[in-house]
Amino acid sequence: MGLTLTEKILKNHIVDGEFKKGTEIGIRIDQTLTQDATGTMAYLEFEAMGIPRVKTERSVAYIDHNTLQSGFENADDHRFIGSVAKKHGIYFSRPGNGICHQVHLERFGVPGKTLIGSDSHTPTGGGIGMLAIGAGGLDVAVAMGGGAYYITYPNIVKVNLTGKLSPWTAAKDVILEVLKRMSVKGGVGKVIEYCGEGVKTLSVPERATITNMGAELGATTSVFPSDEITKAFLKAQKREDVWVPLSADDDAVYDEVIDIDLSQVEPYAACPHMPDNVKPISELGDMKIDQVCIGSCTNSSYQDMMKVAYILKGKTVHPDVSLSIAPGSKQVLNMLAENGALGDMIDAGARILESACGPCIGMGQSPNSGGISLRTFNRNFEGRSGTKDGQIYLVSPETAAVSAISGVLTDPRTLGEMPEIKMPDEFKINDNMIEPPAPVEEMDSVEILRGPNIKPYPETAPLQDELECPCSLKVGDNITTDHIMPAGAKILPLRSNIPKISEHCFTVCDETFPKRAKELGQSIIVGGANYGQGSSREHAALAPLYLGVKIVLVKSFARIHRSNLINAGILPLTFANEADYDKISQGDILCASGLIEAVKNGEDIVIENKTTGDKIKCRSDLSGRAKEIMLAGGLLDFTREALAK
Amino acid sequence: MGLTLTEKILKNHIVDGEFKKGTEIGIRIDQTLTQDATGTMAYLEFEAMGIPRVKTERSVAYIDHNTLQSGFENADDHRFIGSVAKKHGIYFSRPGNGICHQVHLERFGVPGKTLIGSDSHTPTGGGIGMLAIGAGGLDVAVAMGGGAYYITYPNIVKVNLTGKLSPWTAAKDVILEVLKRMSVKGGVGKVIEYCGEGVKTLSVPERATITNMGAELGATTSVFPSDEITKAFLKAQKREDVWVPLSADDDAVYDEVIDIDLSQVEPYAACPHMPDNVKPISELGDMKIDQVCIGSCTNSSYQDMMKVAYILKGKTVHPDVSLSIAPGSKQVLNMLAENGALGDMIDAGARILESACGPCIGMGQSPNSGGISLRTFNRNFEGRSGTKDGQIYLVSPETAAVSAISGVLTDPRTLGEMPEIKMPDEFKINDNMIEPPAPVEEMDSVEILRGPNIKPYPETAPLQDELECPCSLKVGDNITTDHIMPAGAKILPLRSNIPKISEHCFTVCDETFPKRAKELGQSIIVGGANYGQGSSREHAALAPLYLGVKIVLVKSFARIHRSNLINAGILPLTFANEADYDKISQGDILCASGLIEAVKNGEDIVIENKTTGDKIKCRSDLSGRAKEIMLAGGLLDFTREALAK
Repeated sequence: MGLTLTEKILKNHIVDGEFKKGTEIGIRIDQTLTQDATGTMAYLEFEAMGIPRVKTERSVAYIDHNTLQSGFENADDHRFIGSVAKKHGIYFSRPGNGICHQVHLERFGVPGKTLIGSDSHTPTGGGIGMLAIGAGGLDVAVAMGGGAYYITYPNIVKVNLTGKLSPWTAAKDVILEVLKRMSVKGGVGKVIEYCGEGVKTLSVPERATITNMGAELGATTSVFPSDEITKAFLKAQKREDVWVPLSADDDAVYDEVIDIDLSQVEPYAACPHMPDNVKPISELGDMKIDQVCIGSCTNSSYQDMMKVAYILKGKTVHPDVSLSIAPGSKQVLNMLAENGALGDMIDAGARILESACGPCIGMGQSPNSGGISLRTFNRNFEGRSGTKDGQIYLVSPETAAVSAISGVLTDPRTLGEMPEIKMPDEFKINDNMIEPPAPVEEMDSVEILRGPNIKPYPETAPLQDELECPCSLKVGDNITTDHIMPAGAKILPLRSNIPKISEHCFTVCDETFPKRAKELGQSIIVGGANYGQGSSREHAALAPLYLGVKIVLVKSFARIHRSNLINAGILPLTFANEADYDKISQGDILCASGLIEAVKNGEDIVIENKTTGDKIKCRSDLSGRAKEIMLAGGLLDFTREALAK
Repeated sequence: MGLTLTEKILKNHIVDGEFKKGTEIGIRIDQTLTQDATGTMAYLEFEAMGIPRVKTERSVAYIDHNTLQSGFENADDHRFIGSVAKKHGIYFSRPGNGICHQVHLERFGVPGKTLIGSDSHTPTGGGIGMLAIGAGGLDVAVAMGGGAYYITYPNIVKVNLTGKLSPWTAAKDVILEVLKRMSVKGGVGKVIEYCGEGVKTLSVPERATITNMGAELGATTSVFPSDEITKAFLKAQKREDVWVPLSADDDAVYDEVIDIDLSQVEPYAACPHMPDNVKPISELGDMKIDQVCIGSCTNSSYQDMMKVAYILKGKTVHPDVSLSIAPGSKQVLNMLAENGALGDMIDAGARILESACGPCIGMGQSPNSGGISLRTFNRNFEGRSGTKDGQIYLVSPETAAVSAISGVLTDPRTLGEMPEIKMPDEFKINDNMIEPPAPVEEMDSVEILRGPNIKPYPETAPLQDELECPCSLKVGDNITTDHIMPAGAKILPLRSNIPKISEHCFTVCDETFPKRAKELGQSIIVGGANYGQGSSREHAALAPLYLGVKIVLVKSFARIHRSNLINAGILPLTFANEADYDKISQGDILCASGLIEAVKNGEDIVIENKTTGDKIKCRSDLSGRAKEIMLAGGLLDFTREALAK
């Protein structure tokens, strides 16, 4: 029996567990990446492990989130990360060098290698044939220390692409088509593998757009084959030497197959407030718009930008619209500046922002009250834009650009004939904004620059056997990590300071939660299905940890967040019977005992609702390793104990 | 007896008062400008006057301050201003089009005309031979309504420029030389007029750098002649038709003369935390730096940027330094994008920011804790950068760029031979980001877009005859409007909401002030010399008004702030005997009576300190018109009454 592409990479990297569906496996990690909003914590964790130098083939620390710098915190964090990187063998991508995923694709990604990153859009690397997975900062720290990364051996979905995109239809529309079909929960526990003749019609950046936004499916990751197109991309990046061909065997067996005829895909928009709320532009009508934002790790490649520049050239942004453009990397920006495309954008009235995540993470460019904003980004969760009642539509760069000119949501196919925007034969290579680590002999003399906002990892404790405490919060389905630990310009600078950032935990849902939870000392959170979807931020686990949350009991979890809870020593439980969700109200006193044995043996846990008298059966479903982590009080303690042995 | 240049313009514009030193005169205002941080309030005030269409020759509303947009407030304000502009006959410079002073110089400024702007750096227009004065928003509103603008007939200082700047020495160094000699208080009540052979060696943007930062002298304004160089600049902007020659008569009489031999000027830095704390770079030594910021209305012209690009070309920003560059306008940015200079900057690792005020007003790019930041800006007040202990040095673009490469404060003269950076024969003209107002027949149908954060002008009341209330705050010398009403990324978005922004009033000096003042109901602030220096923000008067401040009693006032207090109906008093400053402590109960008669008759006012028994003689020194404004309860009430008559 042949292997899928995913299985081939897994097989080359498995270091723990069996090569068997549904079981937990540990894989060797070749590369890691961090960004600054999750990075300070990841490096604090790495420091806490006491390992002098990373053991990966390549680890890179990027600065792309906290780039507005509305206070000392951001610059302090950048310097901290830069100094840690220098000391511990990590490459440092300086602020201004671009968005981690875009730069990693350009300068570091290698087909067939494994990559984990403390950012949920790490699967962007799948566009170049990497097995690239978003993870918590602590997982990344462990991987930097040479530890394996653990996942459940995934189900593998084949997306069979046929045909060719019609003019003005984009890779973004392909992933929106997939989201429309599969939903934001559809990818949980799965790797999405793109195959078929249609693959050859997609450039590496187009593929990367698709794998990037596979994160919105809840998928473990998405991956494309490594082929001649991949080779040409790497050659144009002067990295042809790292290329290897890679594809699934013809007789590979998949758990699920989805067929997409690219020629049938049309321009779509993901409507407020979920990435899977996808509708054809043609059905949405001439909706008047207030803002257009082009950029983000999803759609900020050279090719994307050249299309945008072509559409804007000689035109003027509609008077009622504010258009911002953030090219994805210094390489892209520099090429646009040199070939005149940037001039065309500026001439049309685009506001050029720094090459960084920017408005995608609510870092500036919040729309007006109730404003309609078209964005080429990957997420349109309520409030994420910084404007609570902002109406965010996710679209392709082509749709965004043409609409910015017309002032209404516009189908780009109305533009008529499409020019051929070729991939460059040579990208402009200048890695001067990537600082290599110090040579081994100079490591010890590198001083770590630690600003006053950088606080240590919160206190942890081994799993308690008995627990009697209130339900401090009850929430519904599809709670995102943006609900749990909001981001945005005001809160992101606090990512290095758990006590401070915890004051914002869940405030989107309930402003009184942080104070209440802290006062209660210990408590349990109850939630619905797909709890913790969205970004990989481990702060969504660390803030509850700091606030005394001991158990999160929900209908189902998003993958990365569940891992982050385990890593933080918070017990993630699911209802054995989802209907029991209704048997707990906020404020009810919940009681559990014999937790240690139950976790050890994988037995059901019965939580008694002391307020109502109901007994609620719950499941922990922890793997062997996860059990040990829980008992130890989290991954940091577990790793320290392991290193001590 | 011949006339100075200033007198010639004044003579052409005087509509009230006598042409006599020291007296108050009203002048006709040809042009106005606003920026968005002061603009919403100015337009609310204009609306409150009920005048349908501006009566100036040209009024322009710029968006350049609140461009980060970390919440709905900014975009709402932009839309509000855009809609007011459209309705009431004002040109609207859209976000992204650049910094008001730079754009005004390029596209609107006219030699010999008067301009007031609700921004303290409005004197930038003096570079093109305008009499351009910073004013409160309410003054601008009155001028838009056709009312005169009142100033004390100024003393006129001749700065006689001889010689020629030596290579790598800049216009910035000239104004730093002036600041070194005159101090931040030295220009109070004065217009600084630049004359002499040296003038011919300076381009319009260089002259504008000098007049711009004349604001830091406390001067009413600064002005250069309009000559062949001015004509060439206007021609290159395709505006040759507005040029008129303008210079002082040979036998003009000045109140003061300062001689500056340009060839003797050397590269300077204004050291923390005042613009007049000027030292030669050569004396400061190889100080290690953390950040460099290039831009702002002082130094963001095409010529400045071309010099910077030349220095950066082929180099790399030092690994320990973050360099940001914000070209001053869309015109500048576009030209740099088209001629390759922007590519050179990006290639070297500069972080390109939007054409806006940005870090100069603490809107992003706050340095690290205690970080040393070289900036080409105009102010280095403590905390203004957004980092309380940031160490800000004001330098020329040349010094900034060369230091960004070396990583230490570096004298640009070490660069060796200087290339000739010519002024372009033709600037790139594309005014598509400037929206003209609606035609008269469509005015009525323009809807004003008012977001929920936009609150009306605070309540006012006519001057009380008797007052007994505590001193709610006592502060020292050189209090800036940044102390009174801090700016920065967190507070600026509240500029349209006086109740909300008042919660930050004086919190730099005393966190408890806003709450205390509000609870007291009525109170008096006591301060030292040069009270209210810095920006023109009328919020530094409107917030105290909202908090119940009735009198501000100080050793001396900065001009614009004193006007703003009068405009807000707060009585500005000075100690007849400065030593009496020591006779009041915070919390003392102060008592004054017969205020109405005393103000009317210009008599001394005696404030009794009920706590100590001291009697303190104070002066109001109000002009005839200012008396009427005070009695009416502020300029808005005064104007409404006048219009009703």
